[in-house]
Amino acid sequence: MPLAEVLLALELVGTFAFAVSGALLAAKKGFDIVGSLLLASLAGLGGGVIRDLVLGYGPIAFHAPLYLVPVGVAVLAVFLRLIQEDRLRRTLLAFDAVGLSLFCVMGTFIAFQAGLNPVATVLLGVTTAVGGGTLRDIVANEVPQIFNPDGVYAAPAFLGAVATTAALEWGLFNAVIAVVVAGLVFAVRIMALRFGWRVPLAELPRRSRGA
Amino acid sequence: MPLAEVLLALELVGTFAFAVSGALLAAKKGFDIVGSLLLASLAGLGGGVIRDLVLGYGPIAFHAPLYLVPVGVAVLAVFLRLIQEDRLRRTLLAFDAVGLSLFCVMGTFIAFQAGLNPVATVLLGVTTAVGGGTLRDIVANEVPQIFNPDGVYAAPAFLGAVATTAALEWGLFNAVIAVVVAGLVFAVRIMALRFGWRVPLAELPRRSRGA
Amino acid sequence: MPLAEVLLALELVGTFAFAVSGALLAAKKGFDIVGSLLLASLAGLGGGVIRDLVLGYGPIAFHAPLYLVPVGVAVLAVFLRLIQEDRLRRTLLAFDAVGLSLFCVMGTFIAFQAGLNPVATVLLGVTTAVGGGTLRDIVANEVPQIFNPDGVYAAPAFLGAVATTAALEWGLFNAVIAVVVAGLVFAVRIMALRFGWRVPLAELPRRSRGA
Repeated sequence: MPLAEVLLALELVGTFAFAVSGALLAAKKGFDIVGSLLLASLAGLGGGVIRDLVLGYGPIAFHAPLYLVPVGVAVLAVFLRLIQEDRLRRTLLAFDAVGLSLFCVMGTFIAFQAGLNPVATVLLGVTTAVGGGTLRDIVANEVPQIFNPDGVYAAPAFLGAVATTAALEWGLFNAVIAVVVAGLVFAVRIMALRFGWRVPLAELPRRSRGA
Repeated sequence: MPLAEVLLALELVGTFAFAVSGALLAAKKGFDIVGSLLLASLAGLGGGVIRDLVLGYGPIAFHAPLYLVPVGVAVLAVFLRLIQEDRLRRTLLAFDAVGLSLFCVMGTFIAFQAGLNPVATVLLGVTTAVGGGTLRDIVANEVPQIFNPDGVYAAPAFLGAVATTAALEWGLFNAVIAVVVAGLVFAVRIMALRFGWRVPLAELPRRSRGA
Repeated sequence: MPLAEVLLALELVGTFAFAVSGALLAAKKGFDIVGSLLLASLAGLGGGVIRDLVLGYGPIAFHAPLYLVPVGVAVLAVFLRLIQEDRLRRTLLAFDAVGLSLFCVMGTFIAFQAGLNPVATVLLGVTTAVGGGTLRDIVANEVPQIFNPDGVYAAPAFLGAVATTAALEWGLFNAVIAVVVAGLVFAVRIMALRFGWRVPLAELPRRSRGA
């Protein structure tokens, strides 16, 4: 199967997953279906729109209406309760994790294709991965996942972007690698949630230097 | 009267109306006049700036200082209490509705001129219409109007963008059509507020499928 | 010393100062070190990214990884408590003021170089100066400094942008002028905080016109 088709499929699946997370958040907050559509669009397309603005492309969603299909399907699936939040509030986080893992690979790949240097490639990959979810949470007036101390969020996306960049620089990138890296990012994110993994806080605990 | 002048006038009126909504919100929240200027600029220019970034133009406000005039007038009018919030808090919503209806037509028209496909034209029209008000509310830490269950907000803008796109595709668009479509969007928005019209929630009520 | 090097140095110092303000806010809110990195990046690079998007350039941070160095140093300095908030919460505001004063000069200069008219130059200078801090506060769910009634914020940036534009238009701009204007902006901002200077509110006090 050619690379281009696999990557498009991954991007559409990632868009769907993030869009579901947006529609579930809209349902949780009691928004109406138009708010659901907006939040699903922001979550599903926001990361890619930021990426494309940074690269100076017109946003993909406006030129390729295909990307609106997974958003519409996601909103409908949540509206009909085909997908709904479970009691442990894990459904939203699971879909968000799928989007995060696919978008960190795709964002990194597209940044590489645009000719950015490796540091910028990693940075834009992470931005693409966390951008949509962060916009979703800001607009819905939630504390963005990226700041939530219950489990690491940006760190797995960062590792995925580094792995993808390395594969691209060394000429090893292909559809299998893309799926494997995304799968690992997803696994790290879910295990972090399950086992309560943490990264250090923004500053060392007081007295840690003097004692 | 030539089309171009009517459209520019509508855009300036829409900018003024949204700017008033921003200055009124600043007054309501006890911000100072600089905050009022910022919130009026975000509301009045935000939708157009997003639209122009998406289309890859330089934002109009930076190249055409003319657009700053309605913003300045709006801030001054609110500062001098020539326009102020009434007890039912309807003044802000009325000015917001004027901006919404004019910007959905103008945003759609400019997207069409840029050569976007019809789906993208509608999408960008709605984004232009709701963008400025949403930025205004996010920055002022309010729940954006678009999520407010008290009356439909994006739906009339969506209908207006569809009607404008249809008129453009069929070669029927002119200054009269622009004003009529904007007037209908305004009427739907105001009637939705007055009569408490609702759109369905983001998910069906529980048990609705099984019962 | 040539102008270009001085300006680059000022921009890097401004980036560092804003990045420290972001990392201090992350520490205050109990975010982890990844959140600190994000908030420092938004504060340090956000104003410049908005500026570059408006000017149609690719964002500088993605093409010139050099700009990531002051961000990383700032996050590390806060993590190791080499810089920490004092009891009067003045450290964050002081670093924010350094960023504000340097970025209003640099943003104005870069807008002038891009060939904008004087009004747009001032506008983009102020946007660059207040953009990063405003993004930082919105994402961290704080009321942006720009709306905080405790001291003027955008006003000194506005004066600095006007002074820089005047110097540029009259052919008088050089490295010394840049430093002097930035120093004055910083002094006004700090004195406004110290002495509780205010600008008028968004609307006149009730009855002020009739009495």
